[in-house]
Amino acid sequence: MSSSDKVETLRWVGDVDGHLVLIDQTKLPVEFQELECRSLEQVWEAIKQLRVRGAPAIGIAAGYGVCIGIQRAVDENAVFAQLSKSVDYLATSRPTAVNLFWALDRMKAKASSLKGESAASIRSALLAEARSIHEEDRAMCHAIGRHGATLLRDGQGVLTHCNAGGLATAEYGTALSVFFTAQDEGKHVRVFVDETRPLLQGARLTAWELTRRNIDTTLICDSMAAQVMREGKVQAVITGADRIAANGDSANKIGTYSIAVLARAHGIPFYIAAPSSTFDLSISDGSKIPIEERAADEITHGFGRQTAPTGVNVYNPAFDVTPAEYIQAIITERGLIAPVSEASIRQVLGRE
Amino acid sequence: MSSSDKVETLRWVGDVDGHLVLIDQTKLPVEFQELECRSLEQVWEAIKQLRVRGAPAIGIAAGYGVCIGIQRAVDENAVFAQLSKSVDYLATSRPTAVNLFWALDRMKAKASSLKGESAASIRSALLAEARSIHEEDRAMCHAIGRHGATLLRDGQGVLTHCNAGGLATAEYGTALSVFFTAQDEGKHVRVFVDETRPLLQGARLTAWELTRRNIDTTLICDSMAAQVMREGKVQAVITGADRIAANGDSANKIGTYSIAVLARAHGIPFYIAAPSSTFDLSISDGSKIPIEERAADEITHGFGRQTAPTGVNVYNPAFDVTPAEYIQAIITERGLIAPVSEASIRQVLGRE
Repeated sequence: MSSSDKVETLRWVGDVDGHLVLIDQTKLPVEFQELECRSLEQVWEAIKQLRVRGAPAIGIAAGYGVCIGIQRAVDENAVFAQLSKSVDYLATSRPTAVNLFWALDRMKAKASSLKGESAASIRSALLAEARSIHEEDRAMCHAIGRHGATLLRDGQGVLTHCNAGGLATAEYGTALSVFFTAQDEGKHVRVFVDETRPLLQGARLTAWELTRRNIDTTLICDSMAAQVMREGKVQAVITGADRIAANGDSANKIGTYSIAVLARAHGIPFYIAAPSSTFDLSISDGSKIPIEERAADEITHGFGRQTAPTGVNVYNPAFDVTPAEYIQAIITERGLIAPVSEASIRQVLGRE
Repeated sequence: MSSSDKVETLRWVGDVDGHLVLIDQTKLPVEFQELECRSLEQVWEAIKQLRVRGAPAIGIAAGYGVCIGIQRAVDENAVFAQLSKSVDYLATSRPTAVNLFWALDRMKAKASSLKGESAASIRSALLAEARSIHEEDRAMCHAIGRHGATLLRDGQGVLTHCNAGGLATAEYGTALSVFFTAQDEGKHVRVFVDETRPLLQGARLTAWELTRRNIDTTLICDSMAAQVMREGKVQAVITGADRIAANGDSANKIGTYSIAVLARAHGIPFYIAAPSSTFDLSISDGSKIPIEERAADEITHGFGRQTAPTGVNVYNPAFDVTPAEYIQAIITERGLIAPVSEASIRQVLGRE
């Protein structure tokens, strides 16, 4: 059985009159529950309430959401009226999600190119466009997985942090795609997962995705990574990235930099897996990446219970920046970038 | 105001007919509640239910518990009968706590030396012995604090992990004693506290003790320590230790080794603070120290909520071992051990 058979973040069921089914991620890791979205309001609510999350997955949901929004339009005028209304409405679901707007703009642009065609024809073409958004993301994840899997050997242990998984994307994710692809190629990999305080994306999402796809998974606390390395349990570290500067400095979930330093100290290669869209070549290096600070109660009230004294000062940086010198290679859908430097980045991305 | 005015883990109120008052640590950090123990059963319950915890504090509680157990004895025979009953009973409260047995043995030995004296005289001498156990621990903590405070300068930031604090001891603790003593000497130190997953002793206990004594305290997740170091916020790391081998390799709460490696990478000195009783010179080095593994649900169901998929594998080592080469100095009540080597350890401990 392929790793892809068991988890689909989102899927479209049927044809132009079909509906969207998505994994309700707010129920994880305790319950696996799929949600059927047959109305625009249901798609809006799913995005708003984080039932679907992660930039690529939100974009895909929005594309299909537009298709649902125009299902009852009987003529061309009605299609364009309902399209406009649907796009404006979905845009209010998560106003800070860049990929949401990117997908909505793409659906609008596609519709504009179809002026004069029949309602049925436009509806059909827009569903095809939504499917393309979905399929392109799926292909991108698989390409990252193929390039990354060349770095892993059968029987190796690997450490990952946070969730760079399929739940945020069409299917395989970025860092996790490397593990799923290695498994598809017949390699056994044992993955250690940092729980990733404060929001526990590793424990809640990554551990769920990996076990769901029958990957040999072991959950640890973030503070145990050094011990796992020292015991020789892992031979590589792979994480995702949120933003990569022109020189390769990579911003990712807080704790990533810590693991990179620990990996270096133990002689273990540290890899980043990320699509080319993660690179921002207008940023020269990591010092220019602002670090968001988040609310204290993520740390003091993280588990539904108060775990620290009332009023204590808290420092809660959401991200850190791993300097390029700690990164053995960056795994992209266009190939491996190694050694990590501005020149090699521009070469692989084709932006010389 | 001295740092010592505000927190007393345990105190004896009155004379031979008095009672024990202790901080109910199960209520922390949300509530500060003191518990009066006027019966042997109450002392037993407090130890059993971890209302009082930490090796030295348990020993002190047991000493006073024996005094309570013999309060109603009217003659010498009754004293020895009730003493024996009290010791046996208290020994069942936490059968794995070495310090509990050490304190009970000491009380028994003292009583044995008093055979033939009056009940009143024995009761009085045993209360004095319990007070000595208490006072010796207090003095030991203060001595560690005095030696350690010489390492800190006014205005410095310091990182600590887990709870090497007063709540486990008579008063100032070990690592935390260094901060309290520095404050008593007029130095301002800013302490960053790792929350210390899985059991959050840093968030629950250390953050409480430090803020209670007006130390400038900032709570972070374990994964943020590297970022705090990189930002130049800390100039030293001080933790406690559970067991130190002859060569200086030190076992302590999981995550300590990680911080030691990170401190080295950032050029920050890493110190251990521990009483001489922590050294086990019969163990040549850290490889001989067994690492206890604890239950998976400490990680998957940490604070009343399931945060990981059902049935996922978990690795939960309770301790790690920091090699001596990472430790700049060990702070003991007998002075600083630096550089850390078998020779310097034996010299300072007077066991050449």
